[in-house]
Amino acid sequence: MNDIDERLKKQLSFSLEIDKEKNVFRRTHLSEKGRNENDAEHAWHMAVMAYILREYSNEDVDISKVMLMCLIHDIVEIDAGDTYAYDENGIKTQKEREDKAKERIFSLLPDDQKAELIAVFDEFEEYETAESKFAHAMDNLQPIILNNSNGGADWREHKVTAEQVYSRQNKTKLGSEKLFEVIDNIIKENIDKKNLK
Amino acid sequence: MNDIDERLKKQLSFSLEIDKEKNVFRRTHLSEKGRNENDAEHAWHMAVMAYILREYSNEDVDISKVMLMCLIHDIVEIDAGDTYAYDENGIKTQKEREDKAKERIFSLLPDDQKAELIAVFDEFEEYETAESKFAHAMDNLQPIILNNSNGGADWREHKVTAEQVYSRQNKTKLGSEKLFEVIDNIIKENIDKKNLK
Repeated sequence: MNDIDERLKKQLSFSLEIDKEKNVFRRTHLSEKGRNENDAEHAWHMAVMAYILREYSNEDVDISKVMLMCLIHDIVEIDAGDTYAYDENGIKTQKEREDKAKERIFSLLPDDQKAELIAVFDEFEEYETAESKFAHAMDNLQPIILNNSNGGADWREHKVTAEQVYSRQNKTKLGSEKLFEVIDNIIKENIDKKNLK
Repeated sequence: MNDIDERLKKQLSFSLEIDKEKNVFRRTHLSEKGRNENDAEHAWHMAVMAYILREYSNEDVDISKVMLMCLIHDIVEIDAGDTYAYDENGIKTQKEREDKAKERIFSLLPDDQKAELIAVFDEFEEYETAESKFAHAMDNLQPIILNNSNGGADWREHKVTAEQVYSRQNKTKLGSEKLFEVIDNIIKENIDKKNLK
Protein backbone atom coordinates (compact mmCIF):
# COMPACT_ATOMS: atom_id res chain seq x y z
CA MET A 1 0.00 0.00 0.00
CA ASN A 2 2.88 2.32 -0.85
CA ASP A 3 0.78 4.96 -2.48
CA ILE A 4 -1.68 5.36 0.36
CA ASP A 5 -1.10 8.42 2.43
CA GLU A 6 -0.23 8.42 6.10
CA ARG A 7 -3.64 9.61 7.22
CA LEU A 8 -5.48 6.76 5.57
CA LYS A 9 -2.89 4.24 6.80
CA LYS A 10 -3.59 5.36 10.37
CA GLN A 11 -7.33 5.09 9.88
CA LEU A 12 -6.97 1.57 8.48
CA SER A 13 -4.65 0.59 11.30
CA PHE A 14 -7.25 1.69 13.86
CA SER A 15 -9.96 -0.11 11.88
CA LEU A 16 -8.01 -3.36 12.08
CA GLU A 17 -7.06 -2.90 15.76
CA ILE A 18 -10.65 -2.55 16.95
CA ASP A 19 -11.40 -6.00 15.52
CA LYS A 20 -9.95 -7.23 18.82
CA GLU A 21 -13.01 -5.94 20.68
CA LYS A 22 -14.79 -9.05 19.38
CA ASN A 23 -12.58 -11.12 21.66
CA VAL A 24 -13.51 -9.29 24.87
CA PHE A 25 -16.21 -11.38 26.52
CA ARG A 26 -18.73 -10.20 29.06
CA ARG A 27 -20.53 -11.99 31.89
CA THR A 28 -23.84 -11.57 30.09
CA HIS A 29 -25.11 -14.52 28.06
CA LEU A 30 -26.97 -14.32 24.76
CA SER A 31 -30.69 -15.05 24.72
CA GLU A 32 -31.89 -18.65 24.49
CA LYS A 33 -29.20 -19.59 27.02
CA GLY A 34 -26.48 -18.81 24.52
CA ARG A 35 -22.77 -18.28 24.98
CA ASN A 36 -21.21 -15.23 26.65
CA GLU A 37 -21.62 -12.00 24.75
CA ASN A 38 -18.66 -10.00 23.49
CA ASP A 39 -18.17 -6.24 23.62
CA ALA A 40 -18.57 -5.61 19.89
CA GLU A 41 -21.93 -7.39 19.78
CA HIS A 42 -23.03 -5.58 22.92
CA ALA A 43 -22.11 -2.21 21.38
CA TRP A 44 -23.99 -3.07 18.17
CA HIS A 45 -27.06 -4.12 20.15
CA MET A 46 -26.99 -0.93 22.25
CA ALA A 47 -26.72 1.29 19.16
CA VAL A 48 -29.71 -0.34 17.43
CA MET A 49 -31.74 -0.20 20.65
CA ALA A 50 -30.84 3.47 21.12
CA TYR A 51 -32.27 4.22 17.70
CA ILE A 52 -35.45 2.18 18.25
CA LEU A 53 -36.08 3.48 21.78
CA ARG A 54 -34.97 7.11 21.30
CA GLU A 55 -38.47 8.44 21.97
CA TYR A 56 -38.08 7.41 25.63
CA SER A 57 -35.09 9.63 26.36
CA ASN A 58 -35.99 12.12 29.10
CA GLU A 59 -34.38 14.90 27.09
CA ASP A 60 -34.02 15.49 23.35
CA VAL A 61 -30.85 13.82 22.11
CA ASP A 62 -28.67 13.90 19.03
CA ILE A 63 -29.32 10.25 18.29
CA SER A 64 -26.36 9.87 15.93
CA LYS A 65 -24.06 10.97 18.75
CA VAL A 66 -25.74 8.51 21.13
CA MET A 67 -25.21 5.73 18.59
CA LEU A 68 -21.55 6.64 18.11
CA MET A 69 -21.10 6.65 21.90
CA CYS A 70 -22.68 3.20 22.12
CA LEU A 71 -20.41 1.92 19.34
CA ILE A 72 -17.12 3.10 20.82
CA HIS A 73 -17.73 3.09 24.59
CA ASP A 74 -16.04 -0.26 25.17
CA ILE A 75 -13.07 0.01 22.77
CA VAL A 76 -10.74 0.57 25.74
CA GLU A 77 -11.60 -2.92 26.98
CA ILE A 78 -9.40 -4.34 24.21
CA ASP A 79 -6.53 -3.63 26.63
CA ALA A 80 -8.33 -3.14 29.94
CA GLY A 81 -10.68 -6.13 29.75
CA ASP A 82 -14.32 -6.19 30.74
CA THR A 83 -15.04 -5.15 34.32
CA TYR A 84 -18.22 -6.79 35.56
CA ALA A 85 -20.70 -4.25 36.89
CA TYR A 86 -20.77 -5.99 40.26
CA ASP A 87 -17.02 -6.70 40.62
CA GLU A 88 -16.06 -4.26 43.39
CA ASN A 89 -12.30 -4.94 43.24
CA GLY A 90 -12.15 -4.64 39.47
CA ILE A 91 -13.97 -1.34 39.59
CA LYS A 92 -11.23 0.15 41.83
CA THR A 93 -8.55 -0.17 39.11
CA GLN A 94 -10.90 0.25 36.14
CA LYS A 95 -10.26 3.93 35.48
CA GLU A 96 -6.47 3.64 35.46
CA ARG A 97 -6.53 0.62 33.15
CA GLU A 98 -9.00 2.25 30.81
CA ASP A 99 -7.13 5.57 30.64
CA LYS A 100 -3.97 3.82 29.45
CA ALA A 101 -5.94 1.86 26.88
CA LYS A 102 -7.72 4.96 25.64
CA GLU A 103 -4.41 6.70 24.98
CA ARG A 104 -2.88 3.75 23.16
CA ILE A 105 -5.83 2.78 20.99
CA PHE A 106 -7.11 6.18 19.93
CA SER A 107 -3.52 7.28 19.20
CA LEU A 108 -3.60 4.94 16.20
CA LEU A 109 -5.89 7.51 14.55
CA PRO A 110 -4.87 10.84 13.00
CA ASP A 111 -4.70 13.53 15.73
CA ASP A 112 -7.99 15.21 14.87
CA GLN A 113 -9.92 11.94 14.99
CA LYS A 114 -8.11 10.85 18.14
CA ALA A 115 -9.29 14.06 19.82
CA GLU A 116 -12.80 13.66 18.43
CA LEU A 117 -13.29 10.09 19.58
CA ILE A 118 -11.71 10.66 22.98
CA ALA A 119 -14.10 13.57 23.48
CA VAL A 120 -17.06 11.29 22.71
CA PHE A 121 -15.66 8.55 24.93
CA ASP A 122 -15.08 11.00 27.82
CA GLU A 123 -18.52 12.50 27.39
CA PHE A 124 -20.00 9.03 27.81
CA GLU A 125 -17.91 8.36 30.92
CA GLU A 126 -18.78 11.72 32.52
CA TYR A 127 -22.50 10.83 32.55
CA GLU A 128 -23.58 14.46 32.32
CA THR A 129 -25.05 15.24 28.89
CA ALA A 130 -28.42 14.01 27.66
CA GLU A 131 -26.64 11.82 25.08
CA SER A 132 -24.42 10.22 27.71
CA LYS A 133 -27.35 9.55 30.04
CA PHE A 134 -29.37 7.89 27.29
CA ALA A 135 -26.39 5.83 26.06
CA HIS A 136 -25.88 4.64 29.65
CA ALA A 137 -29.56 3.72 29.82
CA MET A 138 -28.91 1.41 26.85
CA ASP A 139 -25.75 0.02 28.48
CA ASN A 140 -27.91 -0.84 31.49
CA LEU A 141 -31.07 -2.04 29.74
CA GLN A 142 -29.49 -4.26 27.09
CA PRO A 143 -27.96 -6.88 29.44
CA ILE A 144 -31.08 -6.81 31.65
CA ILE A 145 -33.21 -7.84 28.68
CA LEU A 146 -30.88 -10.70 27.79
CA ASN A 147 -30.51 -11.88 31.37
CA ASN A 148 -34.27 -11.69 31.98
CA SER A 149 -34.86 -13.75 28.82
CA ASN A 150 -32.60 -16.40 30.35
CA GLY A 151 -34.53 -16.55 33.62
CA GLY A 152 -32.01 -14.37 35.47
CA ALA A 153 -29.26 -16.99 35.13
CA ASP A 154 -26.42 -14.45 35.14
CA TRP A 155 -27.62 -12.96 38.42
CA ARG A 156 -28.02 -16.38 40.04
CA GLU A 157 -24.57 -17.50 38.87
CA HIS A 158 -22.85 -14.42 40.33
CA LYS A 159 -25.12 -14.23 43.42
CA VAL A 160 -26.04 -10.65 42.58
CA THR A 161 -28.39 -8.90 45.00
CA ALA A 162 -31.34 -6.67 44.15
CA GLU A 163 -29.55 -3.89 46.04
CA GLN A 164 -26.57 -4.14 43.69
CA VAL A 165 -28.78 -4.08 40.63
CA TYR A 166 -30.74 -1.09 41.88
CA SER A 167 -27.60 0.86 42.77
CA ARG A 168 -26.56 0.66 39.11
CA GLN A 169 -29.99 0.82 37.54
CA ASN A 170 -31.24 3.80 39.52
CA LYS A 171 -29.00 5.88 37.24
CA THR A 172 -30.95 4.61 34.24
CA LYS A 173 -33.67 7.02 35.40
CA LEU A 174 -31.37 9.90 34.51
CA GLY A 175 -31.58 8.85 30.86
CA SER A 176 -35.10 7.48 30.70
CA GLU A 177 -37.79 7.39 33.38
CA LYS A 178 -39.90 5.17 31.13
CA LEU A 179 -37.20 2.58 30.48
CA PHE A 180 -36.37 2.55 34.18
CA GLU A 181 -39.98 1.43 34.75
CA VAL A 182 -39.31 -1.52 32.43
CA ILE A 183 -36.18 -2.38 34.37
CA ASP A 184 -37.91 -1.93 37.73
CA ASN A 185 -40.61 -4.38 36.66
CA ILE A 186 -38.00 -6.90 35.54
CA ILE A 187 -36.08 -6.59 38.80
CA LYS A 188 -39.24 -7.06 40.87
CA GLU A 189 -40.24 -10.13 38.88
CA ASN A 190 -36.79 -11.60 39.40
CA ILE A 191 -36.91 -10.91 43.13
CA ASP A 192 -40.27 -12.73 43.27
CA LYS A 193 -38.77 -15.66 41.38
CA LYS A 194 -35.76 -15.65 43.75
CA ASN A 195 -33.33 -15.01 40.89
CA LEU A 196 -32.19 -11.94 42.81
CA LYS A 197 -31.56 -11.92 46.54
CA MET B 1 -44.66 -5.87 32.57
CA ASN B 2 -48.40 -5.37 32.75
CA ASP B 3 -48.27 -1.61 32.84
CA ILE B 4 -46.08 -1.18 29.79
CA ASP B 5 -47.94 -0.09 26.72
CA GLU B 6 -48.20 -2.09 23.52
CA ARG B 7 -45.84 0.13 21.58
CA LEU B 8 -42.98 -0.31 24.02
CA LYS B 9 -43.66 -4.05 24.28
CA LYS B 10 -43.21 -4.34 20.53
CA GLN B 11 -40.00 -2.34 20.60
CA LEU B 12 -38.62 -4.54 23.37
CA SER B 13 -39.68 -7.67 21.54
CA PHE B 14 -37.76 -6.54 18.44
CA SER B 15 -34.79 -5.61 20.63
CA LEU B 16 -34.66 -9.12 22.05
CA GLU B 17 -35.23 -10.82 18.69
CA ILE B 18 -32.25 -9.16 17.01
CA ASP B 19 -29.98 -10.70 19.63
CA LYS B 20 -30.11 -13.76 17.35
CA GLU B 21 -28.01 -11.95 14.75
CA LYS B 22 -25.02 -12.75 16.99
CA ASN B 23 -25.49 -16.42 16.09
CA VAL B 24 -25.27 -15.92 12.31
CA PHE B 25 -21.69 -16.71 11.36
CA ARG B 26 -19.87 -15.55 8.24
CA ARG B 27 -17.06 -17.10 6.23
CA THR B 28 -14.73 -14.28 7.24
CA HIS B 29 -12.37 -14.92 10.14
CA LEU B 30 -11.35 -12.40 12.78
CA SER B 31 -7.83 -10.95 12.65
CA GLU B 32 -4.93 -12.89 14.21
CA LYS B 33 -6.39 -16.07 12.66
CA GLY B 34 -9.39 -15.86 14.93
CA ARG B 35 -12.72 -17.63 14.78
CA ASN B 36 -15.43 -16.92 12.21
CA GLU B 37 -17.05 -13.54 12.51
CA ASN B 38 -20.75 -13.12 13.18
CA ASP B 39 -23.13 -10.65 11.57
CA ALA B 40 -23.61 -8.43 14.61
CA GLU B 41 -19.87 -7.90 15.03
CA HIS B 42 -19.50 -7.30 11.30
CA ALA B 43 -22.27 -4.67 11.40
CA TRP B 44 -20.65 -2.95 14.40
CA HIS B 45 -17.27 -2.92 12.67
CA MET B 46 -18.76 -1.48 9.47
CA ALA B 47 -20.56 1.29 11.35
CA VAL B 48 -17.43 2.41 13.21
CA MET B 49 -15.38 2.25 10.00
CA ALA B 50 -18.01 4.27 8.16
CA TYR B 51 -17.65 7.02 10.75
CA ILE B 52 -13.84 6.99 10.70
CA LEU B 53 -13.56 6.81 6.90
CA ARG B 54 -16.47 9.09 5.97
CA GLU B 55 -14.18 11.66 4.34
CA TYR B 56 -13.49 9.16 1.53
CA SER B 57 -17.09 8.90 0.34
CA ASN B 58 -17.30 10.08 -3.27
CA GLU B 59 -20.38 12.10 -2.42
CA ASP B 60 -21.46 13.91 0.74
CA VAL B 61 -23.39 11.51 2.95
CA ASP B 62 -25.66 11.69 5.97
CA ILE B 63 -23.25 9.65 8.08
CA SER B 64 -25.83 8.78 10.73
CA LYS B 65 -27.99 7.19 8.03
CA VAL B 66 -24.97 5.27 6.70
CA MET B 67 -24.26 4.01 10.21
CA LEU B 68 -27.87 2.93 10.72
CA MET B 69 -27.77 1.11 7.37
CA CYS B 70 -24.60 -0.67 8.41
CA LEU B 71 -26.15 -1.66 11.74
CA ILE B 72 -29.35 -3.16 10.34
CA HIS B 73 -28.35 -4.41 6.86
CA ASP B 74 -27.91 -8.04 7.96
CA ILE B 75 -30.84 -8.41 10.38
CA VAL B 76 -32.71 -10.48 7.77
CA GLU B 77 -29.98 -13.11 8.01
CA ILE B 78 -31.43 -14.16 11.38
CA ASP B 79 -33.90 -16.17 9.27
CA ALA B 80 -32.24 -16.23 5.85
CA GLY B 81 -28.71 -17.11 6.97
CA ASP B 82 -25.49 -15.63 5.63
CA THR B 83 -25.00 -15.98 1.88
CA TYR B 84 -21.28 -16.02 1.06
CA ALA B 85 -20.40 -13.39 -1.53
CA TYR B 86 -18.99 -16.06 -3.84
CA ASP B 87 -21.71 -18.70 -3.38
CA GLU B 88 -23.46 -18.59 -6.77
CA ASN B 89 -26.26 -21.01 -5.86
CA GLY B 90 -27.01 -19.30 -2.58
CA ILE B 91 -27.23 -15.94 -4.29
CA LYS B 92 -30.04 -17.23 -6.59
CA THR B 93 -32.44 -17.76 -3.66
CA GLN B 94 -31.10 -14.97 -1.47
CA LYS B 95 -33.67 -12.30 -2.31
CA GLU B 96 -36.69 -14.53 -1.71
CA ARG B 97 -35.32 -15.76 1.62
CA GLU B 98 -34.43 -12.27 2.73
CA ASP B 99 -37.77 -10.75 1.75
CA LYS B 100 -39.64 -13.22 3.95
CA ALA B 101 -37.28 -12.54 6.82
CA LYS B 102 -37.59 -8.80 6.41
CA GLU B 103 -41.37 -9.00 6.71
CA ARG B 104 -41.32 -11.24 9.78
CA ILE B 105 -38.62 -9.49 11.76
CA PHE B 106 -39.49 -5.84 11.13
CA SER B 107 -43.17 -6.64 11.79
CA LEU B 108 -42.24 -7.06 15.44
CA LEU B 109 -41.91 -3.27 15.57
CA PRO B 110 -44.74 -0.70 15.71
CA ASP B 111 -45.94 0.04 12.17
CA ASP B 112 -44.19 3.40 11.82
CA GLN B 113 -40.83 1.96 12.82
CA LYS B 114 -41.37 -1.13 10.67
CA ALA B 115 -41.87 1.17 7.67
CA GLU B 116 -38.91 3.32 8.62
CA LEU B 117 -36.44 0.47 9.03
CA ILE B 118 -37.63 -1.36 5.93
CA ALA B 119 -37.10 1.85 3.95
CA VAL B 120 -33.52 2.07 5.22
CA PHE B 121 -32.94 -1.64 4.54
CA ASP B 122 -34.37 -1.33 1.00
CA GLU B 123 -32.34 1.78 0.32
CA PHE B 124 -29.20 -0.18 1.19
CA GLU B 125 -30.22 -3.07 -1.05
CA GLU B 126 -31.05 -0.80 -4.01
CA TYR B 127 -27.46 0.52 -4.12
CA GLU B 128 -28.52 3.86 -5.56
CA THR B 129 -28.16 6.63 -3.00
CA ALA B 130 -24.82 8.04 -1.80
CA GLU B 131 -25.48 6.54 1.65
CA SER B 132 -26.14 3.10 0.23
CA LYS B 133 -23.03 3.18 -1.94
CA PHE B 134 -20.81 4.19 0.96
CA ALA B 135 -22.37 1.59 3.30
CA HIS B 136 -21.71 -1.04 0.63
CA ALA B 137 -18.11 0.15 0.38
CA MET B 138 -17.82 -0.66 4.10
CA ASP B 139 -19.52 -4.04 3.61
CA ASN B 140 -16.85 -4.79 0.99
CA LEU B 141 -13.79 -3.25 2.66
CA GLN B 142 -14.28 -4.62 6.18
CA PRO B 143 -13.87 -8.35 5.35
CA ILE B 144 -11.00 -7.56 2.94
CA ILE B 145 -9.05 -5.94 5.75
CA LEU B 146 -9.60 -8.92 8.04
CA ASN B 147 -8.82 -11.48 5.38
CA ASN B 148 -5.71 -9.60 4.27
CA SER B 149 -4.52 -9.49 7.89
CA ASN B 150 -4.81 -13.28 7.91
CA GLY B 151 -2.69 -13.73 4.77
CA GLY B 152 -5.74 -14.24 2.52
CA ALA B 153 -6.66 -17.49 4.28
CA ASP B 154 -10.40 -17.14 3.57
CA TRP B 155 -9.77 -16.78 -0.16
CA ARG B 156 -7.43 -19.76 -0.24
CA GLU B 157 -9.85 -21.92 1.73
CA HIS B 158 -12.74 -21.18 -0.63
CA LYS B 159 -10.57 -21.11 -3.80
CA VAL B 160 -11.79 -17.63 -4.65
CA THR B 161 -10.45 -16.09 -7.86
CA ALA B 162 -9.28 -12.53 -8.42
CA GLU B 163 -12.01 -12.22 -11.03
CA GLN B 164 -14.68 -13.02 -8.42
CA VAL B 165 -13.26 -10.52 -5.98
CA TYR B 166 -13.05 -7.79 -8.61
CA SER B 167 -16.59 -8.40 -9.82
CA ARG B 168 -17.82 -7.57 -6.32
CA GLN B 169 -15.24 -4.98 -5.40
CA ASN B 170 -15.52 -2.93 -8.58
CA LYS B 171 -18.78 -1.64 -7.13
CA THR B 172 -16.86 -0.29 -4.13
CA LYS B 173 -15.71 2.46 -6.53
CA LEU B 174 -19.30 3.71 -6.62
CA GLY B 175 -19.02 4.58 -2.94
CA SER B 176 -15.36 5.51 -2.67
CA GLU B 177 -12.72 5.76 -5.39
CA LYS B 178 -10.06 6.18 -2.71
CA LEU B 179 -11.04 3.11 -0.71
CA PHE B 180 -11.23 1.11 -3.91
CA GLU B 181 -7.54 1.96 -4.42
CA VAL B 182 -6.83 0.40 -1.02
CA ILE B 183 -8.75 -2.71 -2.02
CA ASP B 184 -7.11 -2.86 -5.44
CA ASN B 185 -3.67 -2.79 -3.80
CA ILE B 186 -4.67 -5.56 -1.41
CA ILE B 187 -6.03 -7.72 -4.24
CA LYS B 188 -2.88 -7.25 -6.31
CA GLU B 189 -0.64 -8.15 -3.36
CA ASN B 190 -2.69 -11.28 -2.77
CA ILE B 191 -2.49 -12.27 -6.44
CA ASP B 192 1.31 -11.89 -6.25
CA LYS B 193 1.37 -14.06 -3.12
CA LYS B 194 -0.85 -16.65 -4.87
CA ASN B 195 -3.59 -16.25 -2.25
CA LEU B 196 -5.94 -15.41 -5.11
CA LYS B 197 -6.00 -17.29 -8.38
